[in-house]
Amino acid sequence: MRIGKVIGTVVATRKDPRLTGNKLMLIQPLDVNQKPIGDVIIGVDTVGAGVDETIIFTKGTAARLGANKPEAPIDVAIVGIVDSIDLV
Amino acid sequence: MRIGKVIGTVVATRKDPRLTGNKLMLIQPLDVNQKPIGDVIIGVDTVGAGVDETIIFTKGTAARLGANKPEAPIDVAIVGIVDSIDLV
Amino acid sequence: MRIGKVIGTVVATRKDPRLTGNKLMLIQPLDVNQKPIGDVIIGVDTVGAGVDETIIFTKGTAARLGANKPEAPIDVAIVGIVDSIDLV
Amino acid sequence: MRIGKVIGTVVATRKDPRLTGNKLMLIQPLDVNQKPIGDVIIGVDTVGAGVDETIIFTKGTAARLGANKPEAPIDVAIVGIVDSIDLV
Amino acid sequence: MRIGKVIGTVVATRKDPRLTGNKLMLIQPLDVNQKPIGDVIIGVDTVGAGVDETIIFTKGTAARLGANKPEAPIDVAIVGIVDSIDLV
Repeated sequence: MRIGKVIGTVVATRKDPRLTGNKLMLIQPLDVNQKPIGDVIIGVDTVGAGVDETIIFTKGTAARLGANKPEAPIDVAIVGIVDSIDLV
Repeated sequence: MRIGKVIGTVVATRKDPRLTGNKLMLIQPLDVNQKPIGDVIIGVDTVGAGVDETIIFTKGTAARLGANKPEAPIDVAIVGIVDSIDLV
Repeated sequence: MRIGKVIGTVVATRKDPRLTGNKLMLIQPLDVNQKPIGDVIIGVDTVGAGVDETIIFTKGTAARLGANKPEAPIDVAIVGIVDSIDLV
Repeated sequence: MRIGKVIGTVVATRKDPRLTGNKLMLIQPLDVNQKPIGDVIIGVDTVGAGVDETIIFTKGTAARLGANKPEAPIDVAIVGIVDSIDLV
Repeated sequence: MRIGKVIGTVVATRKDPRLTGNKLMLIQPLDVNQKPIGDVIIGVDTVGAGVDETIIFTKGTAARLGANKPEAPIDVAIVGIVDSIDLV
């Protein structure tokens, strides 16, 4: 998993029907100091994440499991909302 | 998933027979400002995407699910056509 | 697998219920000289790793296997605690 | 999938028995202008590709599907030979 | 698959029990000229590879297949020992 921030959404009316019902969130990966790092990706929300929230996202088969859609063409999902990042 | 633009096609007459029937699209990954970022990849189209369109693509097993070809050697698929990218 | 160091934890009360019971550890990947290399990721602990310990982590489906949670949206897991790194 | 060029072969007599019968090709990934980009990888040939040919390769589970060897430890396979790259 | 060199081993007495019986090798990925390239990873040996040998390694599910341990949290395995690298 990685830490990220929801920075917006993508609208797509023509899409795989199995993506219907999932908001497509733009996720900016963050480092532990919550600074942007790496490329923005698109993930489905599974925990009611809102724009500007710091979240946990997962990739690959884990994303379909998070979305409870094992047959959907999903490879990134938001699976948690961060309360705090506790460094040593 | 990632945002990308279809920048062309690849023609291959000698190929895995399970790839037959799927157009092989050249996809330039884009950042949220629709600027090119990262290497061009080849994905199969599953939503009627045309050249020059901004699309959503997915990777890995998700790509075979998108193509409804679980036994084909596909690892990238176009699964949506972007209407708008809404940043905060 | 990769070598990493546990540098902290992430707290998330709103999360996929299948993540409950697993501590979410912040892992800094290390090179063989135990210098930080690459982006910090979040993994679940499966071997009782503590903060500041040098550990072995695994990715993808292997992480769910390590966590004994094949249906959880986990893509990184700590699966060993390093005693020594023996270079030639 | 990605575009690549076959730049050579690897010989390994001591190897996993499930790799026997597949030529191990050295693949240089290419960009759309057929310039080298990224690290050379080893893939099995599934379409009769020869050295110096421009090919399409696939990764992960897709590679085992391409090789029709779902139980072999293969993670890259050549699945097409490029006739033409048609940019917009 | 990729070319790599075994540069050492990792000892971990506290680890996932399914990793027991597999030597954990430190692998330095190599380019085709056998120069180091990219980060060192940990893989299990499946072909009797020794330290300082040039080997072929595989990733992901392919690694578990190579190790004949489909339920172990393994994501990298050595599956061949290189006799020669034949460039065009």
